[in-house]
Amino acid sequence: MLAISIYSGLNLPGSEVIQKAFADRVTVATRRLGHPLCAGLDPHLDRFPPLFRRGGMAPEAPETAAALEAFCLAMLDRLAGRVAIVKPQIAFFERLGWRGIQVLEGVVAAARERDLLVLLDAKRGDIGSTARGYAEAYLGSEAVLPVDAITANPYLGLDALEPFVDAAGETGAGVFVLVKTSNPGSGDFQDRSLGGRPLYERVAESLAGIAERMSGPETGWSSLGAVVGATYPEVHHRIRELLPRVLFLVPGYGAQGGGAKEAVAGFVAGPGGRLEGGLVNSSRGILFPPGSDTDHVSSWERAVDEALDRAISELGEAVR
Amino acid sequence: MLAISIYSGLNLPGSEVIQKAFADRVTVATRRLGHPLCAGLDPHLDRFPPLFRRGGMAPEAPETAAALEAFCLAMLDRLAGRVAIVKPQIAFFERLGWRGIQVLEGVVAAARERDLLVLLDAKRGDIGSTARGYAEAYLGSEAVLPVDAITANPYLGLDALEPFVDAAGETGAGVFVLVKTSNPGSGDFQDRSLGGRPLYERVAESLAGIAERMSGPETGWSSLGAVVGATYPEVHHRIRELLPRVLFLVPGYGAQGGGAKEAVAGFVAGPGGRLEGGLVNSSRGILFPPGSDTDHVSSWERAVDEALDRAISELGEAVR
Repeated sequence: MLAISIYSGLNLPGSEVIQKAFADRVTVATRRLGHPLCAGLDPHLDRFPPLFRRGGMAPEAPETAAALEAFCLAMLDRLAGRVAIVKPQIAFFERLGWRGIQVLEGVVAAARERDLLVLLDAKRGDIGSTARGYAEAYLGSEAVLPVDAITANPYLGLDALEPFVDAAGETGAGVFVLVKTSNPGSGDFQDRSLGGRPLYERVAESLAGIAERMSGPETGWSSLGAVVGATYPEVHHRIRELLPRVLFLVPGYGAQGGGAKEAVAGFVAGPGGRLEGGLVNSSRGILFPPGSDTDHVSSWERAVDEALDRAISELGEAVR
Repeated sequence: MLAISIYSGLNLPGSEVIQKAFADRVTVATRRLGHPLCAGLDPHLDRFPPLFRRGGMAPEAPETAAALEAFCLAMLDRLAGRVAIVKPQIAFFERLGWRGIQVLEGVVAAARERDLLVLLDAKRGDIGSTARGYAEAYLGSEAVLPVDAITANPYLGLDALEPFVDAAGETGAGVFVLVKTSNPGSGDFQDRSLGGRPLYERVAESLAGIAERMSGPETGWSSLGAVVGATYPEVHHRIRELLPRVLFLVPGYGAQGGGAKEAVAGFVAGPGGRLEGGLVNSSRGILFPPGSDTDHVSSWERAVDEALDRAISELGEAVR
């Protein structure tokens, strides 16, 4: 049978399933949709609309976990068929302890049922066997919480990234490494000059070999990605020069003030002439848009749909 | 009633509990015990002794979570009264999904019941409200999984560390920032020269202000700590110059090949003349020592006790 889902794998002898490369899956899906929007799931408990609040929202309460689940599942229903990928931020699930992780497992499964790719924003980084523990938890063939891609922190060095790359190789997953983040404090170390060039450029250039190894056969984009949060187009251009086929994850679109054009500054023309080469994330702008702070289902749906329409249209315009 | 437990807090009007500073609690405890050993709980599933194995040890199986819990609780019984602090590595609990986090919550509570301090090795790092999510999950006054200290990653800059520092201030907790790690790849970025000095020195010096703010009133040690994993004594000396009252967390003692003398190279003489100013971690050397791969309780206990005695005696000697 011909595989048509973006999740379909290739069954090899020994019952190992090698999936199509993440970079190919996400690029094909964003091409089809015509925009690079990634929907960030950052469910701050204190911003929940009345519609989804349950009890006092104490982090340890089972009702709070139920509220978190209901909110995320309702969001997935708005997002299904409209975006290629969702990015749950694990901190907001960890905030609820084990019940939060249980909800996250359900949310990830529900996203996959809706044919949404899942990029887990975890920014993990550790050495040797510990990094392997994280990689096996989220990316390996026996992962308990299997996602399509994860974010990772490079401070510990390339050997700390290897377990993620290896586990991703087993299942065709992606790994997005922090290169330049969008917060003001990113200047403290990332911008500091190492032999005349900023640290983030050194990080970017050191990833070139891994990027090559993780190249997707169908689109030529790499399943190694880079988090590029700067609002300055020069930074995007410079990192693109160093990493020509790496997918960018660009946070900060919408609520954090960045515009659509700036967000796709590091994108390049794809087969149909449309710009491609990354994902542009919006979290708060989509999760908590104006008008969504309501207890009416239809008003909430309308507010979220409008925010989503606007982001999709702006980003679709920006890559055209 | 006079508080005697290291966990006792001071009840203030408004029922807020401000605990004694982490740095004071841990320093008083290590002085009393006469050694700086921190017991790392890195429960690799594939290294479990037969005594604790249950079924096929599939990560998602409830029996595996039960095995993890039994193993950790048995270790805590060996450690109680002998070490000041334990350091669970959260990756090995995440590896089991929500059940693993449920076990971790129980292990942390059990450690506290045994008067052991808990340093959660999570190496989290993120921006703004996300960092606050992590900080509230583990350090804040409403934490679901409250620990005495946590490890954090500095790549994102000082503003990304602030939420941890703020939450730690609420409860008297500690924050250990990665400065120089022990893996070979730590040279990739941490050792690179920024204006003539390595990145890790820049990170260290930038922490001086926070360290000052987190100074413990009783011992003068700071509840801001630094992870210093290098095997070269010069590195310890240099970081000590930059951060004179910061507690070092020194991984890599024992199994990773570092000796006791090298591990305390950055320590300084305390009130009784004994060296102090940090914690020396051993994980595998204590969790999986020679002779512990058995299914006899008494043999397992003997093997662990012997490894613990040896580490305590070597480190006690090194600080004398």
